[in-house]
Amino acid sequence: MSVSEKGRILSIQSHVSFGYVGGKAATFPLQCLGFDVDVVNSVQFSNHSGYGRFGGTKTSAVELTSIFDTLELNELLEPSRLLTGYVPNAEALTSVAEVATKLKQQRPEIIYMLDPVMGDSGRLYVAPDVIPVYRRLLPLSTIISPNWFEVETLTNVPLKDMPSLRRALTILHTDYKVPNVTISSVPLQPWLIDAVPPYLRPASDNPHLLCISSSSTYKSSNGHLSSVHAQSVPLLPGYFSGVGDLFSAMIVGHFDPSDTSIPTGKTALSHAVSYALTKTHAVLVATHEYSEKLPLEDRLPTDDEQDKIEPMRKIRRMRGRELRLIQSMDILTGKGPGGLRHMEPWTNFWE
Amino acid sequence: MSVSEKGRILSIQSHVSFGYVGGKAATFPLQCLGFDVDVVNSVQFSNHSGYGRFGGTKTSAVELTSIFDTLELNELLEPSRLLTGYVPNAEALTSVAEVATKLKQQRPEIIYMLDPVMGDSGRLYVAPDVIPVYRRLLPLSTIISPNWFEVETLTNVPLKDMPSLRRALTILHTDYKVPNVTISSVPLQPWLIDAVPPYLRPASDNPHLLCISSSSTYKSSNGHLSSVHAQSVPLLPGYFSGVGDLFSAMIVGHFDPSDTSIPTGKTALSHAVSYALTKTHAVLVATHEYSEKLPLEDRLPTDDEQDKIEPMRKIRRMRGRELRLIQSMDILTGKGPGGLRHMEPWTNFWE
Repeated sequence: MSVSEKGRILSIQSHVSFGYVGGKAATFPLQCLGFDVDVVNSVQFSNHSGYGRFGGTKTSAVELTSIFDTLELNELLEPSRLLTGYVPNAEALTSVAEVATKLKQQRPEIIYMLDPVMGDSGRLYVAPDVIPVYRRLLPLSTIISPNWFEVETLTNVPLKDMPSLRRALTILHTDYKVPNVTISSVPLQPWLIDAVPPYLRPASDNPHLLCISSSSTYKSSNGHLSSVHAQSVPLLPGYFSGVGDLFSAMIVGHFDPSDTSIPTGKTALSHAVSYALTKTHAVLVATHEYSEKLPLEDRLPTDDEQDKIEPMRKIRRMRGRELRLIQSMDILTGKGPGGLRHMEPWTNFWE
Repeated sequence: MSVSEKGRILSIQSHVSFGYVGGKAATFPLQCLGFDVDVVNSVQFSNHSGYGRFGGTKTSAVELTSIFDTLELNELLEPSRLLTGYVPNAEALTSVAEVATKLKQQRPEIIYMLDPVMGDSGRLYVAPDVIPVYRRLLPLSTIISPNWFEVETLTNVPLKDMPSLRRALTILHTDYKVPNVTISSVPLQPWLIDAVPPYLRPASDNPHLLCISSSSTYKSSNGHLSSVHAQSVPLLPGYFSGVGDLFSAMIVGHFDPSDTSIPTGKTALSHAVSYALTKTHAVLVATHEYSEKLPLEDRLPTDDEQDKIEPMRKIRRMRGRELRLIQSMDILTGKGPGGLRHMEPWTNFWE
């Protein structure tokens, strides 16, 4: 496929002036893959909210609808892929849902990557009334990329063992008709380590996360609901923002069910996730290495009490941990060194 | 200079979802050069205004100031370069002027590329009250990139012969203290063809434009006000939007007064303009070639009467002429084939 035929992605998510989260974490990487990206900003903020202080405004539902309606009227609403991320409230998300519904009706073959950005580690960071809107959106999606907490929120299933994980995936695939689910950054709790096949377990005692993909579009040879793949990745210390946004962008950018070169035993999803995982982790390593070399004042450890007294502590830490996306262009275009972190079949997942 | 040390550019201009003008024409090319781009959107529109119909909203002065103030408070307002383009009205431009003034005070070495976007071919497309604000901004700039009409508007000098062109440049360099002026796309009228040295004249009878750069920071060997360089470029038929925005971005991205490899006889400005001219023209050629291959309905010629009756005529034409930026990544990064279109000294300009 030549670069000029990669097509258009309509990306609807947040915009920050400084740093790389939301659209700023997705657009450049997708452009590096050769996509024209139609960018609609759900907010325009100075920086991401993790800094504690941010300026700017949210785009209202009326403003979003004005943009979508004019694009349609002008016959410019013709993406082959749709990527939606952070949208701050139910009104704005409803406007996004309308355009997603319309696109799906007009072009059923559209690849829709839905990242149901709602929260992390037990904390919602959107208004709770977005949850039902996301549930209504799920059946339109081609792929969803919730984190662990968002799976629990969408399915109402607390994930505490293999039966609950299977139940949650069953709800997503069956009740919500989502063909492809990927869950990144799953904490590798003891029950999960016990459940994964030995070849998916971390190679060292250092902390690792598990990445899971589940595709119901490929009939599993033994008749199970979906084909599940996974891989464990070393956990880098500290928190980096925008990682999930980059990961979702790389999945939708690499997902290609018509690709005849996908190796046997892989699904189109697991193949795309292998690329996304490899590139995202490499960017993260570059970012981590960069931040480690900063002066001490730019990397003071998290200390909620001290951070509260002295807001610049946290702000400087956040600044030093902004993704090194621009400096990772070779990684993003795929010209960098290093092999692929392959998602491997989790053959006994459903047993 | 390694990619990671290119630094940050604060870019303040328009945003469109579809297509490439303003920030969408500047950000990706600057990122391809290795710059972190801090993007502040002066508007969020569905598409550029040349389509005739556009949705979305302008960012208010209050919203812009909220973003700038928070960036400063968070110590994130630390660009080494500043690029300002289309800002729709005087209130918003005043907010931009405040941040430019502050940056210039805090870091006098900042490289400020001011593109005084006001209009083209005799027609203003901003509110007239922006003109005095741009005049106040001029002394802060390192480089300005007005078109022919904007030079006339800023200086109040109608450009009709060499004395008036010299007078306009004298006003910009002397009264407004602008060290570097570049004027692209100058129509090569007979008096101008007569005035340029033979080696700067078009190589063929096909229509050409002249690009002029004038730098007062290098003492001309014969004591003139500035060192002037120029080059003629073939004019491609029809109108392409965003060309000036790409051109300005490429100049500020390539401008480097500390570069010791600049050839004798060139200024830092003319050297940067050579790169900008080469890359912009190559993108334009790629765009033209692409648009020529489109179905007839996507490239119906301009016909004001017909276009009025049938708005989609114009819209389809505009869509087919959006810059092929993403497909020109190799051109933008400088890895593409082809030599440089050198800006050559216009030695007798002031005589």
